Amino acid sequence: MLVEQQLHSLDRAVRLDQIDPGRFVGETSPDYWNMAGPFGGVTAAVLMKAALQHPQWRGRPVAQTVNFCGAIAQGGFEVVVALAREGRSTQHWRLELVQGDSVAATATVVSGASRETWSHHPGVAPVIPAPESLPVFSAAGRSSWLNRYEMRFERGAPSRFEGGADRPGSAETRLWVRDAPARPLDYVALSALADSFVVRILQVRGDVPPVATVTLSTYFVGDEEELARQGDRPLLGAANARVFKHGFNDQSAELWSDQGTLLAISHQLVWFKS
Amino acid sequence: MLVEQQLHSLDRAVRLDQIDPGRFVGETSPDYWNMAGPFGGVTAAVLMKAALQHPQWRGRPVAQTVNFCGAIAQGGFEVVVALAREGRSTQHWRLELVQGDSVAATATVVSGASRETWSHHPGVAPVIPAPESLPVFSAAGRSSWLNRYEMRFERGAPSRFEGGADRPGSAETRLWVRDAPARPLDYVALSALADSFVVRILQVRGDVPPVATVTLSTYFVGDEEELARQGDRPLLGAANARVFKHGFNDQSAELWSDQGTLLAISHQLVWFKS
Repeated sequence: MLVEQQLHSLDRAVRLDQIDPGRFVGETSPDYWNMAGPFGGVTAAVLMKAALQHPQWRGRPVAQTVNFCGAIAQGGFEVVVALAREGRSTQHWRLELVQGDSVAATATVVSGASRETWSHHPGVAPVIPAPESLPVFSAAGRSSWLNRYEMRFERGAPSRFEGGADRPGSAETRLWVRDAPARPLDYVALSALADSFVVRILQVRGDVPPVATVTLSTYFVGDEEELARQGDRPLLGAANARVFKHGFNDQSAELWSDQGTLLAISHQLVWFKS
Repeated sequence: MLVEQQLHSLDRAVRLDQIDPGRFVGETSPDYWNMAGPFGGVTAAVLMKAALQHPQWRGRPVAQTVNFCGAIAQGGFEVVVALAREGRSTQHWRLELVQGDSVAATATVVSGASRETWSHHPGVAPVIPAPESLPVFSAAGRSSWLNRYEMRFERGAPSRFEGGADRPGSAETRLWVRDAPARPLDYVALSALADSFVVRILQVRGDVPPVATVTLSTYFVGDEEELARQGDRPLLGAANARVFKHGFNDQSAELWSDQGTLLAISHQLVWFKS
């Protein structure tokens, strides 16, 4: 089929041309547009992809922090990647995404050597109905990036006009989520998925103030085999927030395999206008 | 009293000489020594102090990420601070801590303008007995940094020889914690306190493998007034972990005022040897 020969929209969006070992050029994608710039998750995925493509990259990603410093305009950008330090167990990468003279995002990615150690899993996956029993969320008429994910909410769908200032809604969301169209899971996709939980304020207040993620940190606790085993099936996601104040709120999220394996833990601080 | 005229051990440990607007020199402190280098929290505090001292700094800290790239040796270090980008609402700062030719830590600090907005606090403080009803933890014979904090555990004290591989202990800790001697709370102290939850593996396994924080992200959700109001009284702290695997584990923590106001949320990824 022709469609199989075409790149997935995510792979198109994170496509980078390597102009030096540590320098890449790319272009924003209308497919992942948010209200006033690219969806933060796709920027995280671009930065992850750049790190993974550096010739000195070793191991697998274990942590990524992206600081969204300013609006990213539609069009071209450059990604600069440098190895800050490496040891036997980890590599520490520094990145920045630049447009013209402006740093639009800074990031760090830590890679870890693959090895077996003692393991222990005190965290427990939420239990929600199977994906096929929950309706697919319709993002028609919303930002284009929302249409790049298949979301099946058990609770906490982003809903305008619910809640309201007198009675804030819950900040909790639980859902099944995967790329749309479906795409085999890898660290690039997982990096974006970690930011696919719509900013909490939408469902809490029921309106859409000017809002932007300031900083996003994701810990990749699933290994390559677990990601491959998950394939393109929906991931179980859960997100919540603790405090909205002085124009900022926290947001925490987990992404689990459909077999109950924790794959990623993610945290962000979100700016909102008023 | 003479003691009041002396610097607090934390202020001695974070003392920096500004040799350029964005360059500082400092020295590691034996008071905050950990097993194989300085306590990570004191390094975070040094980096926070450097950002706050930059002449272009505006607003208050809202987020900090520190990446611990390599061991910090006893002795002098340099801190380089640069403003990556600023807007109306935030400043994005990049920092590194250097010893010789080696980058020992990289960091980002985000500052936020102080302003009133809609606020909402869905998070709820844990309820534990009052500080005076819980015994002060004795850190005699342990790393010196542990003796720079007064810790009163309700649960999850770091205890060697408890648990064991056959029966991992709980990863949860709840305690009252403050600097020892007591010191008025500010963002420098809070930056260190966010890392004062002893790495989870100690209480889960009951032994002390080689272990090191790889990356630490703290969101400062308390404002200056709330920090001042807390003064030098103990903070309510809670920490937990979800997964230990392939030589890494997550750790999440909250620090609350004794009036039930959330002051900081912190996350880290920890490396352990085996």
